[in-house]
Amino acid sequence: MAESDADGVVYLVGSGPGDPDLLTVKAHRLLTEADVVLHDKLPGPEILGLIPDEKREDVGKRAGGDRTSQEYTNDRLVELAHEGNVVVRLKGGDPFVFGRGGEEAEHLAANDVPFEVVPGVTSAVAGPAVAGIPVTHRDHASSVTFVTGHEDPTKEESAVDWHALAATGGTLVVLMGVGKLPDYTAELREAGMSGETPVALVERATWPDQRVATGTLADIVEVRDREDISPPAITVVGDVAATRETLAAFLRNGTDEAFDATEVGEE
Amino acid sequence: MAESDADGVVYLVGSGPGDPDLLTVKAHRLLTEADVVLHDKLPGPEILGLIPDEKREDVGKRAGGDRTSQEYTNDRLVELAHEGNVVVRLKGGDPFVFGRGGEEAEHLAANDVPFEVVPGVTSAVAGPAVAGIPVTHRDHASSVTFVTGHEDPTKEESAVDWHALAATGGTLVVLMGVGKLPDYTAELREAGMSGETPVALVERATWPDQRVATGTLADIVEVRDREDISPPAITVVGDVAATRETLAAFLRNGTDEAFDATEVGEE
Repeated sequence: MAESDADGVVYLVGSGPGDPDLLTVKAHRLLTEADVVLHDKLPGPEILGLIPDEKREDVGKRAGGDRTSQEYTNDRLVELAHEGNVVVRLKGGDPFVFGRGGEEAEHLAANDVPFEVVPGVTSAVAGPAVAGIPVTHRDHASSVTFVTGHEDPTKEESAVDWHALAATGGTLVVLMGVGKLPDYTAELREAGMSGETPVALVERATWPDQRVATGTLADIVEVRDREDISPPAITVVGDVAATRETLAAFLRNGTDEAFDATEVGEE
Repeated sequence: MAESDADGVVYLVGSGPGDPDLLTVKAHRLLTEADVVLHDKLPGPEILGLIPDEKREDVGKRAGGDRTSQEYTNDRLVELAHEGNVVVRLKGGDPFVFGRGGEEAEHLAANDVPFEVVPGVTSAVAGPAVAGIPVTHRDHASSVTFVTGHEDPTKEESAVDWHALAATGGTLVVLMGVGKLPDYTAELREAGMSGETPVALVERATWPDQRVATGTLADIVEVRDREDISPPAITVVGDVAATRETLAAFLRNGTDEAFDATEVGEE
């Protein structure tokens, strides 16, 4: 490698779904060893609390729209690296799953900044899992598709083909899909999916106040409204979502026993 | 919860893609705190080396076929828990992504054994990521589908509809897909995917001897043979696979700098 020791480096780091215990060993170490950590609110207060105050730089509350913010973040990463810093760019979940980490990596490469990707536990897998839902299952689902329910509003038409997704026969996991739930559940039914298809909503997965609501493709919008499920939440569509019923009585995730005593005491 | 302190518990734990640094903080802690750790070879020697010898129980080398082995593992988990042990069932990647963790959870619940799922970094995301490939990208892929290339041989017909997967327009990540690469690449082309579609193979992702080979849907079988890519490996099909070309010069994953000096010295 040609770079000198004086050059900085950027780590694109996934923080996992929210529980600090689900940080990777490497992410946990980098939060204290880096010179500076650029973050937004997504990793959550417990994980952000692990970063020494003087190293924290919040890029999630910039004025203006999403594009402005992303451009600012891109430029700031390059600037800090060129100054010789070891920079962590901390992102919720995994940096390369709907996190725009790919765009940040491209910007770094275009500006001659070496970088390393530190994968994280994605909430697309962990969200269903902690609710007792395996996204694949030998008897129920040979594939799983992750899709976002909240597309870039600047796109003129949806790039997501819900009819094609329905035809895969596999599990669908929709991230950021609370608001548009009525739209895509309707599209999936139009595409021929049964109204009886099990659906689960997992709100604030792995957080102490995690909640799970279940229903079917036909009634999940009603369930969402009745239970007041709000973002951030994961939607799971497919037969595997019914596994929760079988498992719930013995599943400790999401129960008091799975959380620290301090969390339990706050309830 | 009704269970007494004398009851055991099973943790279904993902070990991540292989790099011990990509264990979660919780998985890392449980490996030493558990009474017994049931594992196979998938987590790899470095991670298995973290488990105290007297706690290790290898269930990956049972005689007989896969079904026998799985039944033995299921029964052993129940037996150990009923004896009052804190049991870790350690699985490569994430326990609920093609890991038969769902079946193990069902068996535990059916036998009144409380359990907790500890999600891990799935190689389906991390494999592409460390090769410089974001599985989703605002400009290239609005969805990503994980599918296995190595289906249960007892199934009479394939449950995977490659034509439907091709129609999603998203990224396809095939796990355990080295051997059947000629079959499914042919199916994807028959389904109308261009022969020019970028494809990447990531062998032993995140391990010190990780290798990456790239090509197109038309020539990737030839590339596999020429480079002698062997399992375990991940196949990535889709425009995002070309991102590697843009990023490779500045990507530190898979370079000497990303590994310990001891690893480098062994080369």
